[in-house]
Amino acid sequence: MNGAIKALKFDSAGLIPAIVQDAATGEVLMTAYMNAESLQKTIETRKTHFWSRSRKKLWMKGETSGHVQKVKGIRADCDRDTLLVKVEQAGGACHLGYRSCFSWQLEGEAWVERGEKLFDPEKVYKKAP
Amino acid sequence: MNGAIKALKFDSAGLIPAIVQDAATGEVLMTAYMNAESLQKTIETRKTHFWSRSRKKLWMKGETSGHVQKVKGIRADCDRDTLLVKVEQAGGACHLGYRSCFSWQLEGEAWVERGEKLFDPEKVYKKAP
Repeated sequence: MNGAIKALKFDSAGLIPAIVQDAATGEVLMTAYMNAESLQKTIETRKTHFWSRSRKKLWMKGETSGHVQKVKGIRADCDRDTLLVKVEQAGGACHLGYRSCFSWQLEGEAWVERGEKLFDPEKVYKKAP
Repeated sequence: MNGAIKALKFDSAGLIPAIVQDAATGEVLMTAYMNAESLQKTIETRKTHFWSRSRKKLWMKGETSGHVQKVKGIRADCDRDTLLVKVEQAGGACHLGYRSCFSWQLEGEAWVERGEKLFDPEKVYKKAP
């Protein structure tokens, strides 16, 4: 395992939050959790891998949708308890079809859709019959 | 209280993580936690307020350092459990003196300092005698 992983502060469940940012535009695309194994896989393959808390399994971003994230750089914060992963995003990062998960802007007292919708999630995540 | 706050998913401690991003450059500056009250204060004053888990109190970014963050926009993600706050940052966001907390880049097996150091924390956070 990469020695830099040992310097990180994982939480009591062995997880660390990762912010994913478009390396070219600076747009924040999504956040997800990594454990040591998924970070090691991310470093080795240069494609983002995360830990799903609901499904309790390692997953690669884009494994179903094809919307893979090529890793261009990885940063840690001063407390070593949050990661910032800079990527080249294929397609959209958000499972609702938007380029970014942060497509909801506070306007007055409402969260208003202000994102770029790139795909129809029903088509992309459609399961084989 | 702003009605949009009620639509958010706070964790069991009543907190939601907030990513703070430079509105002009897209640089991710820091992350911290907000509770409903600190988000309400952030919306009202247009200056970021957070909840300190260690000190168990509300704080305004820059209250000691003067490095205040003027809020230019607030976004929520698709799950409504993470915020993205776009700001105009005075001085540096990191308590170690860097512009961004994410000043540590993975190079080989080490986290290497790749941040812009703007101030000497010993001077800025020096307490009155």
